[in-house]
Amino acid sequence: MTQFLSANDAPDINALINSAKAFKADPFGQQPGRQKMVINLFFNSSLRTRMSTEKAARQLGADVITYDASGGWGIEFADGSVMNGNTAEHVREAAGVLSQYCDVLCVRSFPSLEDRAADYEDRVMKSFVKYATVPVVSLESATRHPLQSLTDCLTIAEHRTVARPKVVLTWAPHPRRLPQCVSNSFAEWMRAWGEVDLIVANPPGFNLAPAFAPKNIVTHDQRAAFAGADFIYAKNWSAYDEYGATTTNFGDWMIDEEKMTLTNNAYFMHCLPVRRNVVVSDGVLDGDRSLVLQQANNRTWAAQAVLASLL
Amino acid sequence: MTQFLSANDAPDINALINSAKAFKADPFGQQPGRQKMVINLFFNSSLRTRMSTEKAARQLGADVITYDASGGWGIEFADGSVMNGNTAEHVREAAGVLSQYCDVLCVRSFPSLEDRAADYEDRVMKSFVKYATVPVVSLESATRHPLQSLTDCLTIAEHRTVARPKVVLTWAPHPRRLPQCVSNSFAEWMRAWGEVDLIVANPPGFNLAPAFAPKNIVTHDQRAAFAGADFIYAKNWSAYDEYGATTTNFGDWMIDEEKMTLTNNAYFMHCLPVRRNVVVSDGVLDGDRSLVLQQANNRTWAAQAVLASLL
Amino acid sequence: MTQFLSANDAPDINALINSAKAFKADPFGQQPGRQKMVINLFFNSSLRTRMSTEKAARQLGADVITYDASGGWGIEFADGSVMNGNTAEHVREAAGVLSQYCDVLCVRSFPSLEDRAADYEDRVMKSFVKYATVPVVSLESATRHPLQSLTDCLTIAEHRTVARPKVVLTWAPHPRRLPQCVSNSFAEWMRAWGEVDLIVANPPGFNLAPAFAPKNIVTHDQRAAFAGADFIYAKNWSAYDEYGATTTNFGDWMIDEEKMTLTNNAYFMHCLPVRRNVVVSDGVLDGDRSLVLQQANNRTWAAQAVLASLL
Repeated sequence: MTQFLSANDAPDINALINSAKAFKADPFGQQPGRQKMVINLFFNSSLRTRMSTEKAARQLGADVITYDASGGWGIEFADGSVMNGNTAEHVREAAGVLSQYCDVLCVRSFPSLEDRAADYEDRVMKSFVKYATVPVVSLESATRHPLQSLTDCLTIAEHRTVARPKVVLTWAPHPRRLPQCVSNSFAEWMRAWGEVDLIVANPPGFNLAPAFAPKNIVTHDQRAAFAGADFIYAKNWSAYDEYGATTTNFGDWMIDEEKMTLTNNAYFMHCLPVRRNVVVSDGVLDGDRSLVLQQANNRTWAAQAVLASLL
Repeated sequence: MTQFLSANDAPDINALINSAKAFKADPFGQQPGRQKMVINLFFNSSLRTRMSTEKAARQLGADVITYDASGGWGIEFADGSVMNGNTAEHVREAAGVLSQYCDVLCVRSFPSLEDRAADYEDRVMKSFVKYATVPVVSLESATRHPLQSLTDCLTIAEHRTVARPKVVLTWAPHPRRLPQCVSNSFAEWMRAWGEVDLIVANPPGFNLAPAFAPKNIVTHDQRAAFAGADFIYAKNWSAYDEYGATTTNFGDWMIDEEKMTLTNNAYFMHCLPVRRNVVVSDGVLDGDRSLVLQQANNRTWAAQAVLASLL
Repeated sequence: MTQFLSANDAPDINALINSAKAFKADPFGQQPGRQKMVINLFFNSSLRTRMSTEKAARQLGADVITYDASGGWGIEFADGSVMNGNTAEHVREAAGVLSQYCDVLCVRSFPSLEDRAADYEDRVMKSFVKYATVPVVSLESATRHPLQSLTDCLTIAEHRTVARPKVVLTWAPHPRRLPQCVSNSFAEWMRAWGEVDLIVANPPGFNLAPAFAPKNIVTHDQRAAFAGADFIYAKNWSAYDEYGATTTNFGDWMIDEEKMTLTNNAYFMHCLPVRRNVVVSDGVLDGDRSLVLQQANNRTWAAQAVLASLL
C-alpha cells in the first residue's frame, strides 16, 4: 500500500482487518514507527480521528505532530496563479515541506457542500497527494472517510454471525447539513469488501452519488430495508442531486426500538457524534445491540493497521 | 485511589505528599505509564496545569494527548433530550469514547459564576466521571482545584518549621470576577490534611461556601488573621452568597511588606497567575519568603504522584 | 553556547554547520535530550519553525510541549506596574514558571511594525531571557530569525562550489507588510560567518537597519547585484527608515528566469512561504537551481545542532 485514500488503495481488505485485529490483541506488538514521524494536518477540527490516529502512531513507536490549520492557512491550489491575494503558500511548497518533516502525511479536508464538481474533485487531498513525497493518508476528505470505513469493516467482521450479513446503510434525520463522506465510503467499502449484502435506504432526493450507491441497492422504504437486516448503519447526509440540500422534515426516518424489531436482531452502528432522539432513540443507542463505542474503539486499530502498512 | 476530584479521594494526604517528594528527587524513578495514555481535556485554557500534567505523565513513561475544547464542543448533559439544537454529542458518548483512547482521563471545566446551584452540582466533571470507564482526574472543576491544593500541601510540608503552622487563606483584590475553586479546595485540603491551623480572611459578603470554610474559621479582619501566621496564601474569589458578585472597592486587602511584618516571618503563597501591585506588592512577591515559583514547580510532582497512583 | 538569539551567540558558526550536517547524516546519533523537556512558546503561529523544532527535539530524545499563545496571553512587561488592566501575568512569573517545566525554552515573538524603537528593543524576547533560568532559543523575534539564518549558512555550505561565493540578498515584491527579521538575520549571519561576499539589493527607501546591512554592501540596482552571483536569496521586507511602510508599486523586482541568467548559474533561496509569480516566477521556483525545499529540510538539522548544544 502506498497511500490510503479510498477502498481502491486497499488491495486486500481482509488482510487489513486481520492486521487491525492483531494490533487490538497486542497494541505494541510491532514497532515499525521507531524513529519515524507522522504528521496529522487538519483543515477542520476532529476528536475521534485525531486521537485514534495519534494513539495508533504512538503505539507503532512513531512520533506525531498534529497541526490544526482550521484557523486558516491560505493554501493556493491553482497552477500558474499570481499569488497577490489571500493565499500565502502554494500546495507544492506546503506538501513538499511537510513531506520532509515526516514519513507519513495524514490530511483531513472537507467539502464546501456548495459546488459539487469542486467537492468531488477532492482537490485538497489530491493536491497533497500529487506534491507529497511520502505516503498520504486521508483522515476524511471532501468525499470519503476511508479510515472510518475500514473500522466499520472490522466491527462488522467481529460481530457477524452469518457468513454474509445483510447490512443497511440508512439515512437519518439531523438538523445540520452534513457531508456525504462517511456514507460514500461506507458504501464503497462494503461493496469492495464483498462479504455483505448492502442496501442503502434514504428519502427521495437523498440518493448518494451513483458511483458509490448504484440505483439497484437504493430504496426509499426504510422499513422494508430493515426486514431481516443484521446490521443497521445510520448516518445523515445532505443531498447529492440538489447538492448540499437538506430537510427539516424528518418524516419517520429516526431509528427507534420499534423499527429495530423489524430486523434480524440487528446491531446498530453509527460513526459518532450522534444526535440522540433525532438520529436514533436513546433506547437503541443504549441497548445491548449498539456498537457505537466499539466502533470508536476500533478506529485506533484500523488506523494502526494502515499506518503500519505505510511506515 | 480510583479518581481524583476532591480531598475525599485522597485517603492519605501524607502518602501523596511523600510520593510527590520522591518524584521530585527522582523524576523518572517509576515508569507506571509505559504503554499507557493520558488524555487531558480542557474546556477552558490552561498553562501551568497543562504543562505540569503533561510533564508528569511523560516522566511516568506515558503518552499524552491534550485536547483543547475551549473553542466549543457542544456536549449535551441532559438525559432524554432531543438533540435538535446546538449540542452535537452527549456526554455518554464523549466520556465513553475518550475512555477507550486512554488509561486516565483528566478534565478541566469551569463555573458559569451565574447559577450557583448549577455550578455547585459540578455537572461537567460529575458527568464525565459517571460515564467514563477509566479514572478521572480533575484539572479544576466548577468548584475545586485539587491538584493545586495537593501542591500547596507539598509546598507547606517542605517549608514548615513548626509541626502545626498557622496558615491564612486571605482574599485579595482583583479586577476580574474569579471562581472559588482554588480557595474552596485549599480550605478543604488544609482541613482534611489536619496538620495546620487554618484561618480564612475575607471582606464581609465574600465568605466561601460553609461546606469549605465553616464560620468558625472565617474572619473579616485581615490584620488580626496575619498575626503570628507562618504561611499567607492569597487569592481572589467572587462571592458565594451573592453568587458571582465582585467588587472594585478593594479596601486595604492587598498584601504588602508592612502587612507581612505582622506575621511570624510568613511565607507568601499564590497559585499564579498573579496581578502585581493589585493582589500583592512587588516587594512581597519578589522577596525571599515568596514561594510562588516553588508552588508552580511543585505542580509537576503533585500531578506525578496522582497519576502514578491511578496508572 | 548558553542561548541562541543572534549570531553573537554562535562562537563558531562552522562548528554549528558541521554539527547540523552530522545530524542530517545520522538524526538519532546523539541523544542529549533524554529525560529532558523543550518548551516551544509561540506568540504568533508557525508551521516550519514549529515542526522542525519539535522534530529536532524529539530526535535528540527530548520531550516537547508546544504552547500556542497567539490567542492571547496578557503578559505584563513593565516593572512596577499596577496590573489592574488587561495583563494577567508578569513576564517574571511567566518566564520563571516555564523555566521550571523545561530545560530549553524556545520563544517566538513578532514586531508591531508600528513602533520601531519598541520593536528593535525586542522586549518580549529580552524579557524572557532576563527572567528565564534555562537557555532561551529564539524561534524568531521582533528583529531576528537566527534558526533560519543558521539553516541558510548550512544550505550555502552544502551547495557552494567556490570557496567564497557571491551572495545576493534581494528585496522582492509582496502584497503584505512583512517584518525585517529574516533579512536582518541573514545579513548578520552571512557577515559573521565571513565566508561569502554579501550584497543587499533593495529599492530606495527599503534599506535594512545599518547595523545589519551597512551602506557599503547595499545597492538599489538589482540587475547589477545579480551579475556573477552564486546565490540569490529573495525576501520581502517592509521599510526600516519610514518604519513599517511598504509599497504596492513592485517595479521590476520580481525574480524571474531572465534575471537569473545574469548570475553565475546561481542557486535560488527563499525561507518560505513564498508568493508565486509575485516574489519569484514559477520557472525559477520549480527550476533545478531552486533550493527552497532543501532549506526547509535543513531547518530540522540546524535546530537539532542548536538544541544539542544547549541541552
